[in-house]
Amino acid sequence: MSEDTRIDLKKKIKDHMDFPKKGILFRDINPVFRDSAALESISKSFVDEMEAKDIDLIAGIESRGFVVATALANRNKKGVLMIRKVGKLPGKTLKRKYDIEYGEAIMEIQEDAIRPGQRVIIADDLIATGGTALAAAELVEQLGGRVVFFAFVIDLVHLSGSQKLKEKGYEVRSLVNYHE
Amino acid sequence: MSEDTRIDLKKKIKDHMDFPKKGILFRDINPVFRDSAALESISKSFVDEMEAKDIDLIAGIESRGFVVATALANRNKKGVLMIRKVGKLPGKTLKRKYDIEYGEAIMEIQEDAIRPGQRVIIADDLIATGGTALAAAELVEQLGGRVVFFAFVIDLVHLSGSQKLKEKGYEVRSLVNYHE
Repeated sequence: MSEDTRIDLKKKIKDHMDFPKKGILFRDINPVFRDSAALESISKSFVDEMEAKDIDLIAGIESRGFVVATALANRNKKGVLMIRKVGKLPGKTLKRKYDIEYGEAIMEIQEDAIRPGQRVIIADDLIATGGTALAAAELVEQLGGRVVFFAFVIDLVHLSGSQKLKEKGYEVRSLVNYHE
Repeated sequence: MSEDTRIDLKKKIKDHMDFPKKGILFRDINPVFRDSAALESISKSFVDEMEAKDIDLIAGIESRGFVVATALANRNKKGVLMIRKVGKLPGKTLKRKYDIEYGEAIMEIQEDAIRPGQRVIIADDLIATGGTALAAAELVEQLGGRVVFFAFVIDLVHLSGSQKLKEKGYEVRSLVNYHE
């Protein structure tokens, strides 16, 4: 399990200036996902820690987070829980507002998605300011779940989201860090 | 590779009447994804055929298709290509309109996502009338990709989407069939 198959993910991330709008530098993870060795490397990244910490479920944040969550889940024989934009999930749900660049959005989770005491990893492709991640954690905790750690592929460290999560007592793991 | 780990996925699919709108019976795959054995069973479903047919990439259709695509990709050491709703992908893209229940939507693929001749599986959680699947295939083919087969978890057979795909010469695989 300690076989080191980590490859240079950063080399595969492609920068796009002015996407989705002027002044934004978009770090595109799509070339990483398309690369079989890179995707496999992501799936193996937290094997030892997941085993040691007795994880029950991997929550993925819509929608690139679904790829990361499923890669981790598959490798470690766990299930995937979808945390979605509002309106996509049937049945009883919990909702939570979070800040996006201009204004607010709402994310949603199914009430029967977690049993109290279950140990959850929250996965996404990227952490920036952390608003989305924090809202996801609050939903998981409202259902009685325990957020054991956050797993990101990319951490935009200069935007302080991972710092904010750590200050609130969460453990944060990431594979590629950018400082500007 | 021929170990039969298939479990009864249909039992785990939860029906919701009147979602997302009155008169619609929604087949919710979320309980399947959350179940580690069920998700593993999906990931193993086409192992032999993927091996025999020399697949290069698994294309997932946003967004439940990303979970199915990643499960298949991980198990078979392939990459995942995201076919997305319009406006989410940076760089040069191809777009295609498709019909949804009321009106039209647009899906998009990155132009550098496929090299000519690559052999692609298109994965989604569900096939209904087939409009989305067909648009995805057209995008893959416009880039020179070959759609080797479609992989769905759920086929709503009575809505004739899989029949339509077969009439156009595509191979279609599904794990759970509904006839009404």
